[in-house]
Amino acid sequence: MIASPSVAQLDPDVVQLQNDALTDELAFEITEGLTTEIGPRQGGTEAEARARTWSVKKLTDLGFANVRIEKFMMPTWVRGTETAVITTPFPQKLTITALGNSGSTGADGLEAEVVFFPTLGALAAVPDGSLKGKIAFVSHQMKRSQDGSSYGAFGRVRFFGPNIAAQKGASAMVIRSVGTAYRRTPHTGNTNFSARVTPIPAAALSIPDSENLRRMIERSNEPVRMKLVLTPQDIGQQESGNVIAEVPGSDPSLPMILIACHLDSWDLGTGAIDDGAGCGIITSAAHRIMNSGTKPKRTIRLLWAGAEEVGIWGGKDYAVVHKDAPHAIAMESDFGADRVWRVEFNFPEAAKATQDKVITNLAPLGIGHNPSITAGGGADVRPIIGAQNLAIVDLQQDGTRYFDLHHTPDDTLDKIDPEQLRQNVAAWTTTLSIIANSDVDFTMPAKE
Amino acid sequence: MIASPSVAQLDPDVVQLQNDALTDELAFEITEGLTTEIGPRQGGTEAEARARTWSVKKLTDLGFANVRIEKFMMPTWVRGTETAVITTPFPQKLTITALGNSGSTGADGLEAEVVFFPTLGALAAVPDGSLKGKIAFVSHQMKRSQDGSSYGAFGRVRFFGPNIAAQKGASAMVIRSVGTAYRRTPHTGNTNFSARVTPIPAAALSIPDSENLRRMIERSNEPVRMKLVLTPQDIGQQESGNVIAEVPGSDPSLPMILIACHLDSWDLGTGAIDDGAGCGIITSAAHRIMNSGTKPKRTIRLLWAGAEEVGIWGGKDYAVVHKDAPHAIAMESDFGADRVWRVEFNFPEAAKATQDKVITNLAPLGIGHNPSITAGGGADVRPIIGAQNLAIVDLQQDGTRYFDLHHTPDDTLDKIDPEQLRQNVAAWTTTLSIIANSDVDFTMPAKE
Repeated sequence: MIASPSVAQLDPDVVQLQNDALTDELAFEITEGLTTEIGPRQGGTEAEARARTWSVKKLTDLGFANVRIEKFMMPTWVRGTETAVITTPFPQKLTITALGNSGSTGADGLEAEVVFFPTLGALAAVPDGSLKGKIAFVSHQMKRSQDGSSYGAFGRVRFFGPNIAAQKGASAMVIRSVGTAYRRTPHTGNTNFSARVTPIPAAALSIPDSENLRRMIERSNEPVRMKLVLTPQDIGQQESGNVIAEVPGSDPSLPMILIACHLDSWDLGTGAIDDGAGCGIITSAAHRIMNSGTKPKRTIRLLWAGAEEVGIWGGKDYAVVHKDAPHAIAMESDFGADRVWRVEFNFPEAAKATQDKVITNLAPLGIGHNPSITAGGGADVRPIIGAQNLAIVDLQQDGTRYFDLHHTPDDTLDKIDPEQLRQNVAAWTTTLSIIANSDVDFTMPAKE
Repeated sequence: MIASPSVAQLDPDVVQLQNDALTDELAFEITEGLTTEIGPRQGGTEAEARARTWSVKKLTDLGFANVRIEKFMMPTWVRGTETAVITTPFPQKLTITALGNSGSTGADGLEAEVVFFPTLGALAAVPDGSLKGKIAFVSHQMKRSQDGSSYGAFGRVRFFGPNIAAQKGASAMVIRSVGTAYRRTPHTGNTNFSARVTPIPAAALSIPDSENLRRMIERSNEPVRMKLVLTPQDIGQQESGNVIAEVPGSDPSLPMILIACHLDSWDLGTGAIDDGAGCGIITSAAHRIMNSGTKPKRTIRLLWAGAEEVGIWGGKDYAVVHKDAPHAIAMESDFGADRVWRVEFNFPEAAKATQDKVITNLAPLGIGHNPSITAGGGADVRPIIGAQNLAIVDLQQDGTRYFDLHHTPDDTLDKIDPEQLRQNVAAWTTTLSIIANSDVDFTMPAKE
């Protein structure tokens, strides 16, 4: 006989909450409300302000405590006209969208030869100043991946490409959209210029357009020239804000659990998968704990962060304003609405039994665990995690189709699968019910 | 023992041609060339003229005989600005595109209350004049279908809806795109106004936008108002043309086989599935017959028709110009590039054995036959079929995903599956090799 190993047991109360969550309607209702009644809600804009008002009403109506807006100011960039036309040798329009922080071509646009680079590394290899008067065009080989690691590798084309092209002297840069679907809906997203370069016009082609441009260059004996018009503007400091709500805990001496999503969205879609669904998921789970009949030991604080897409301004503001508030664990939902497939932790040794209990109680939902992966937290909680050295749980969502839609006009309500959304709520409810009722010390060992 | 039934046999020469066609590259090459070097090529525009020049060179280089352009004039409508914004109660932009022949709102646009009708029949039921000052919004329940019958039923919303809305007094009309995919790429296409109404602005919302607008109307206690700007223009008579080429037959006394596709495309996509692929398929099949070592008995004439999308002007012109030329059978490829799944005939009794031979020799390609269905021909050959009462073969393509893409920006080269495209070429090569070498009298019985 083999001795029974030490494995945590299913907790009948947790299982009950989990099963109830599998019939959830609230997460969808929140996502539907935000996408229908507000739609696009870019950080710093009037639409985001309307979204905050909507959120305060919704969270108050749901019975949360201490619902409030914490305002902050932030630099704001807004999209203008955006067109791209191949003028020679194969005249036709291409579908394009400006990247956040793109420079402007001016209303008259610019026309220049397109110089093709199959990878970001190929662009980085040319001498500074060598692309004077040219439009740099960088492609890449992004493929779908369940854990989103493709974004880590290929997102760099968007994050850093335009800055590199500016160093090389290019007049403008166009990239293959950082995405994975053959749709004529380009992917926007921020790019960043260092203080040492002047921001150049920078835009993403849809993937079909990117491949078409590449074919044109390959089959043409003469330069391929593009007329590009991008007229975005920096409109200076604008108001944004975080929306905060709480489920008060029964033991105020225990540090709280912070759970986050972001309220803002890119302007092209209606912010369903990014990140209306995240707000729906965390809120419905917290609501279930609040209405479970017993107060959780720890306070659960909800952060619907403002202005994440355009620079994580809400997450940074939260870390400054709440730097002295005691937090135990931070979590975030910001990777779509498809099923949670893996749980990751960054827990102290003292919390090992709690970690095992979470893993065991998530198993009925088909959620795996890879002990070699350490949780890193979402973008909005990372500043407070860094400031306070917090414990983290990541409920990783399946990202296989996430980058088909990410930052495109196609991020709309119809992309939410209600069944998978419910599985998310069940995973969050399960996890919260365990960690918010644990009085283990989650203090992380000091970093060396 | 049961007597062997009378079934046609596989013809080894035909099978050889069919097998060779399953490695075809030419159909893809033509589609790639048209979509890359020309792109969108709306009937009557300069881009369509460039496409004709391209086509004449391609067909000549391929060795076809009697390659020529037959020009004609046609009324031409071109797209302008197109935007739609919900102004109240849930301000946000919607994605929209004007329907062909839409009226203009003028540059200042119009703002009006949206009145929702779940079906075209519901719109038709309201009294004439009752929609004064309103924007009519008609939805529908189109689903995917293999044979495209959904288009017959739901295309009516686009074909006839705006005319009905104009009769009812509406200021403008928006429809749910006549399509089947949840993408933010609206479907354009012609609508037609009778001489008794003044054309009103008419546009299609993408399907996600259409469902969003419907939700707004359902959850609002006040009228939902839309600001619509559509500035298309009628630019009068412009030049278009058919491109014609031939594989000369060995017996000039036999009436010819006419095979067609259309060269023009809607302006939003690059005309890959509609109908670059059709031109690729018919041309590669005819090219295989031409280069098979034996001249076909009958001349095969290729018609790359102009200006189909905007009113079948090329097909109508062909029927007038060639009304006295002897034709035996007409065929067309204009339903995408997915596999041929069914063959249909409209043949005289005398050609029954030829029909059986086609059915038998298509079987290796997995192509079915339903004897209760009579072939009707494609849009560009229907005028000459009507004028001369011609026999017809239809090689029906699988239309399951066709209306995901039809008339949208997403009609691009990447949507072509090279494997399925080759099966089309094989089916066409098989059919042409049999009918172009048959000396049966294909004359149809006179219509009563």
